[in-house]
Amino acid sequence: MYISITKTTHPGTLLPSDQLGFGIHYTDHMFIMDYSDEKGWYDPRIVPFQNISLSPAACVFHYGAEVFEGLKAYRRPDGEVQLFRPWDNMERMKNSAIRLGLPVVPPEDALEAVKALVKVDERWVPSDPGTSLYIRPFLYGTDAKLGLHGVHTAQFIIILSPVGSYFDNGMEPVKIIVETEDVRAIRGGTGEAKCGGNYGASNRAGERAFANGYSQVLWLDGVEHKYVEEGGGMNVVFKINGRIITPMLTGSILPGVTRRSCLQLFEDWGMPVEERLISVDELFEAAANGTLEEAMCVGTAAVICPIGELTYEGKAYTINNFQTGPLAQKLYDTLTGIQWGTQPDPHGWTCKV
Amino acid sequence: MYISITKTTHPGTLLPSDQLGFGIHYTDHMFIMDYSDEKGWYDPRIVPFQNISLSPAACVFHYGAEVFEGLKAYRRPDGEVQLFRPWDNMERMKNSAIRLGLPVVPPEDALEAVKALVKVDERWVPSDPGTSLYIRPFLYGTDAKLGLHGVHTAQFIIILSPVGSYFDNGMEPVKIIVETEDVRAIRGGTGEAKCGGNYGASNRAGERAFANGYSQVLWLDGVEHKYVEEGGGMNVVFKINGRIITPMLTGSILPGVTRRSCLQLFEDWGMPVEERLISVDELFEAAANGTLEEAMCVGTAAVICPIGELTYEGKAYTINNFQTGPLAQKLYDTLTGIQWGTQPDPHGWTCKV
Ligand SMILES: Cc1ncc(COP(=O)(O)O)c(C=O)c1O
Ligand SMILES: Cc1ncc(COP(=O)(O)O)c(C=O)c1O
Repeated sequence: MYISITKTTHPGTLLPSDQLGFGIHYTDHMFIMDYSDEKGWYDPRIVPFQNISLSPAACVFHYGAEVFEGLKAYRRPDGEVQLFRPWDNMERMKNSAIRLGLPVVPPEDALEAVKALVKVDERWVPSDPGTSLYIRPFLYGTDAKLGLHGVHTAQFIIILSPVGSYFDNGMEPVKIIVETEDVRAIRGGTGEAKCGGNYGASNRAGERAFANGYSQVLWLDGVEHKYVEEGGGMNVVFKINGRIITPMLTGSILPGVTRRSCLQLFEDWGMPVEERLISVDELFEAAANGTLEEAMCVGTAAVICPIGELTYEGKAYTINNFQTGPLAQKLYDTLTGIQWGTQPDPHGWTCKV
Repeated sequence: MYISITKTTHPGTLLPSDQLGFGIHYTDHMFIMDYSDEKGWYDPRIVPFQNISLSPAACVFHYGAEVFEGLKAYRRPDGEVQLFRPWDNMERMKNSAIRLGLPVVPPEDALEAVKALVKVDERWVPSDPGTSLYIRPFLYGTDAKLGLHGVHTAQFIIILSPVGSYFDNGMEPVKIIVETEDVRAIRGGTGEAKCGGNYGASNRAGERAFANGYSQVLWLDGVEHKYVEEGGGMNVVFKINGRIITPMLTGSILPGVTRRSCLQLFEDWGMPVEERLISVDELFEAAANGTLEEAMCVGTAAVICPIGELTYEGKAYTINNFQTGPLAQKLYDTLTGIQWGTQPDPHGWTCKV
């Protein structure tokens, strides 16, 4: 793939790490590629970061024709920049596109584009502890037709954002509330795709939780409102009475790259994991009788996020004295060690740009 | 509300009715209004039809922060232009916005904007039989932040499209297939909101159906895959053994304005209607034993669309000899009579612009 590059004439000023926040500031450039049924994907280009201009009839504004990914570039101690399991993200974007009926960007082309863009904006990859360059590839339909129809023209874009910690306080335990009214996703729907509609459906509950002091919601399954699925933007892992449990991928849960990495680490460490349905009753019984030793959210944005307090139907339970537990700490240290290149990478999860 | 108006210097050329299609051509102008938490809705304006320019990080591209409406303006025989139950659409847009956590456009302001825009582009309202001006209000979040967050800035836009018949062949019976794999919506989700995510979830199945010669799919409920819900872009009404049946509004179905109007007409005509769960088994048993007298889709785009053939799990059933039945014809004649102003409007459903 030949990617044309047009450099900005107004390079931006790097911000100090403590002013980065998450997904607020963008780098100098972006990647764009167009699609039509006739031409396939064409005109891959890196251009100065700029607004998108689209017909108001474009189907991305009306019919939710959009999927995205989220991964990071990390600054290694030797100064080089690396990605973490980017193949998995590109493969997931392909699956998301298929579910939504959007044209598929060949994963190898998508990865090439990510690498090329990160290279051009390499100076934006921060180096302070906990900082990284968040990478947001996204793909949407542009057909300017209002009748319901398939997507025949599309755009694939990548933008970059230098980020600090996802949560304001870094890896500190957070409060989570089980959502009992709204439903996010259902098997057969789009829950396992990373598409806009899932987040549109989640937004109200997330905001309600946030307004009440919770960092995010814990979703239950949409059929029985009984089984724990995932957090608003992360998968979940529990340790109950010495056993590690994570909700199985039923089709309504996003198959997280971080979740998959945790499962591999558990295997490396000889720790059996139960990937299965876990009911909210089982979880809160464990919380009530003190056998819920640890609970955590796992995802690219925050890596590992211990759950210090869990609320369901008005009852709040503190977990592990609102402290980061040893399992969360070990996962965090190992994953971030591999991601930032301070620890060996036995599984070949990283790749330099 | 004071709406500023900037007229185009390049007015477009009207197309002959038979070249209109549906939602392909747009009028000279559009309405835009901005929102921020601090200012509320501000700067309502009618401007020449033009592209939208947004940050690539705008949440409409990533997190499905979008809702829309669809209604029509009709040319009466006396030359005046009228709308059909626009209050219902503006009210539904409000409900959709609440579900998605988007700022609400006060329904009276939204209606004022619709009327003002249709007035400015009145020459675009076609007058040939079956033609109308399709009105597409839509509302989306513009916050350029990638962390999951509520919507604090938004835009409300209205575009207009002169349209012919929704289906290529006008009111002719169509073939419909029951979708058994993908799920569109679920109670607690966003099914009763008119938001992008529902259509994103539907797109693949719709395209698959279309490629196989069906005009749209018939959705089943997402929990049991057992109850008939609605068509891809229309509600459904059946006549079985003399009884009129339509799926009840369970929370996962769009509450259609056309559906509601049909229910009122049935009441006017002294025809009892069963608004209830109807299983796909009941429906196909009736189709098999010949008691399914009529089946039809009902919605703004096509008004009434008889279903001539219904397919489920590989078996196709012809309904009413693939002819438009008397009930569909009567509904169509009455509704279009009221909409185009050729019949009395006893319920005060229309309003002039
Ligand atoms: C709903 C949801 N679940 C889980 C995850 C975690 O996935 P990953 O580990 O690939 O970042 C994310 C996104 O990051 C998400 O948005
Ligand atoms: C999914 C769906 N169901 C039903 C309808 C019918 O609603 P209305 O009669 O308000 O047009 C529509 C839209 O028009 C729709 O998109």
